Amino acid sequence: MKKVLIANRGEIALRVHRACQEMGIRTVAVHSTADETAMHVRLADESVCIGPPPARESYLNVANILSAAAITGADAIHPGYGFLSENAKFAEMVEAHGFTFIGPTADHIRMMGDKITAKDTMRRLGVPLVPGSKGALSSLEEARSVAEEVMYPVLIKAAAGGGGRGMKVARDASEIEEAWRVARTEAKAAFGNDEVYLEKYLDRPRHIELQVLADTHGNVVHFGERDCSLQRRHQKLVEEAGSPVLTPAERDALGAQVTAGLRQLGYRNAGTLEFLWQDGQFAFIEMNTRLQVEHPVTEMVCGVDLVREQIRVAAGEKLGYGQEDVRFSGHAIECRVTAEHPVTFAPSPGRVTTYHAPGGLGVRVDSALYSGYAVPPHYDSLVAKLIVHAPTRAQAIARTRRALDEMVVDGIETTLPLHKRIMEDPEFQAGDYTIHWLERFVGRGG
Amino acid sequence: MKKVLIANRGEIALRVHRACQEMGIRTVAVHSTADETAMHVRLADESVCIGPPPARESYLNVANILSAAAITGADAIHPGYGFLSENAKFAEMVEAHGFTFIGPTADHIRMMGDKITAKDTMRRLGVPLVPGSKGALSSLEEARSVAEEVMYPVLIKAAAGGGGRGMKVARDASEIEEAWRVARTEAKAAFGNDEVYLEKYLDRPRHIELQVLADTHGNVVHFGERDCSLQRRHQKLVEEAGSPVLTPAERDALGAQVTAGLRQLGYRNAGTLEFLWQDGQFAFIEMNTRLQVEHPVTEMVCGVDLVREQIRVAAGEKLGYGQEDVRFSGHAIECRVTAEHPVTFAPSPGRVTTYHAPGGLGVRVDSALYSGYAVPPHYDSLVAKLIVHAPTRAQAIARTRRALDEMVVDGIETTLPLHKRIMEDPEFQAGDYTIHWLERFVGRGG
Repeated sequence: MKKVLIANRGEIALRVHRACQEMGIRTVAVHSTADETAMHVRLADESVCIGPPPARESYLNVANILSAAAITGADAIHPGYGFLSENAKFAEMVEAHGFTFIGPTADHIRMMGDKITAKDTMRRLGVPLVPGSKGALSSLEEARSVAEEVMYPVLIKAAAGGGGRGMKVARDASEIEEAWRVARTEAKAAFGNDEVYLEKYLDRPRHIELQVLADTHGNVVHFGERDCSLQRRHQKLVEEAGSPVLTPAERDALGAQVTAGLRQLGYRNAGTLEFLWQDGQFAFIEMNTRLQVEHPVTEMVCGVDLVREQIRVAAGEKLGYGQEDVRFSGHAIECRVTAEHPVTFAPSPGRVTTYHAPGGLGVRVDSALYSGYAVPPHYDSLVAKLIVHAPTRAQAIARTRRALDEMVVDGIETTLPLHKRIMEDPEFQAGDYTIHWLERFVGRGG
Repeated sequence: MKKVLIANRGEIALRVHRACQEMGIRTVAVHSTADETAMHVRLADESVCIGPPPARESYLNVANILSAAAITGADAIHPGYGFLSENAKFAEMVEAHGFTFIGPTADHIRMMGDKITAKDTMRRLGVPLVPGSKGALSSLEEARSVAEEVMYPVLIKAAAGGGGRGMKVARDASEIEEAWRVARTEAKAAFGNDEVYLEKYLDRPRHIELQVLADTHGNVVHFGERDCSLQRRHQKLVEEAGSPVLTPAERDALGAQVTAGLRQLGYRNAGTLEFLWQDGQFAFIEMNTRLQVEHPVTEMVCGVDLVREQIRVAAGEKLGYGQEDVRFSGHAIECRVTAEHPVTFAPSPGRVTTYHAPGGLGVRVDSALYSGYAVPPHYDSLVAKLIVHAPTRAQAIARTRRALDEMVVDGIETTLPLHKRIMEDPEFQAGDYTIHWLERFVGRGG
């Protein structure tokens, strides 16, 4: 692999560029007209403009991206996260045009993209699931019957869903009809598909996910878990590796189940299985067939470069190591810094007058910001990831606090003040939180 | 320990501040009138102006520093490196005034400050030395006789020396008289002391040093070696951990000798034993009784925070781990970025219009720079340390190259271009260098 086209923008485009550059692989940036001065364009070996904003005219424009790859003689395409990264059709077209897709097969992307198929598959592979309906519900009566079986509260969710749309809670039998009706209506409106399914609703779960990596020779390893419970409106804000509640034995047991399952499935490249966790029980919710925003915390505790590994296995290389070689060292925390007001979360694009990254031991910053850069209004608000590594969780929190104190992003509003308040909070410091914690924390003004 | 006064400036003051902040210890910055807007002043909890430049009026002004500690109610003083860090009298006065000195005892500082005493001590403790005179030479005749014994070429060096002054090579018997005479004259002029000693001259040595740490309970560990052979005029420019030429067995053997010796000596706190290394043989040259500029490469491969450890042992804490707990992982490289022209090395103080630190996996920056900061002309030219960690030396070099490509220090000249050329050089990449390599590399224009 000599040249990789990076079909993305922002910090993740930069992340992929860095891995390529360190491997001696040339990079091609693609960009919209709004991103002409973006860092990923400035640092790439070559760049091609693929259209104007919004994303559908450029970063989601498959024809333009494939043309850019052809024109520049790229060997492979890395999709990053978001945009086309979980688009099975795109993966198919990339390979049909003779490029290597740095990711799983189109079939596996498609399989995991449909949440019912994904759960059926995981059930078959022995991965733990939350109790619920076997696939889509055929009627309100079936919903009632399954809800009685798994016990209220329950959740009715769109089969094609995501981002909280088409998802309703029924706390008891009196709420099931309304939940059924609203979830189907929202699902139809949002995804053009009114299929819904039912699950037991875990009332105080954590979000814990497992990072996996597979080569094309049947080798599958996991790199442990990330606790991503700190979410606001289903958007993760702070992630940790490892989880404050998981023992090494619990991690190993889950990891063994998952890697055995994925080996059977013939999965390749990186992926993440997301679980709800409550009272020692895991319940699979979905699998992301791509690199995730929060992958750096795993890199810090495992000493692995996940993008390098993605590229290696996409090129057909063997992993060259086994599960017994994966070691976990210390604790890592990531703060997602977004261009949003830290209390109202109003978007705050605009010119960054001064950007100053924190430094020193155990501090990593993944960001495409620079002083004078204008954050465009068209895209995701994530502008920087502060990732900190230390021997213990308490030290990682202390280090995150001091790094946040050093970090400067002037000219726009960011969530930096919110991150400071989270790091100072005794409940957070005790690791005592669920997926609902952040909403309440934000609701009471941090 | 609740409050630490940091008797230094620049990146090392910031380094100590960071460790304190992460430990919940308040910091007092001291600064000259030229450093009012310096980063170490901006980030410290409190700051005290201790006088104007040059350093003897402020950073070397013991009375003012002790007054600042008294006024602010500091418990302890960290001297950093340079300035007062190896001044035994200062260490004594700090303790006499009731503050904790974060470093070794004044006696050990004094012992290692005198190079003949240091060598005599190390000889007694079983640490390997370069063959030479037992202490100061009493006459030219003794110089001749020892030179015949250890075999030419030999070096005549000032007992009180440093920085290459009072140091002369005699390649054969015809040069010994001249070397004796000039070395003594220079020693007298530079240090007010014309005592000289003689050593076998190693013609193609590497500079390899060993990082040690001791508590006040008799526990001594080492954190492996750093290869600091890349020097220009005795100033280190690039450092690595580990050395490209040392095997783990050689490291362990040296480490065992050294730690046994220091345990016998009752040494405390951090220290570094510097050796010349040639053909598998180590020869002790000096011991630095302080933190060193290049300590971060050791931190990266050992996962240790050396400043935190210094503070812990100064507070009387036990190490809490033994040599068997010290693990070495991967390879680290440090580039010292100085405010100097990359070819002529002319000093280049002045205003930094844009400072942009590189980021991403395995990249650490220790720097007190910020956009708009004016580098004052009064002090050492070091403005940033780029430290990179990766699983292998080849990957560390590749990562350093890409980090150097991202790093921006506009408005002043820096050695960044020189570091890029070094990292691209096949001899450097092969690890094939001695302490003379960099002078030749620079001499032929990089």
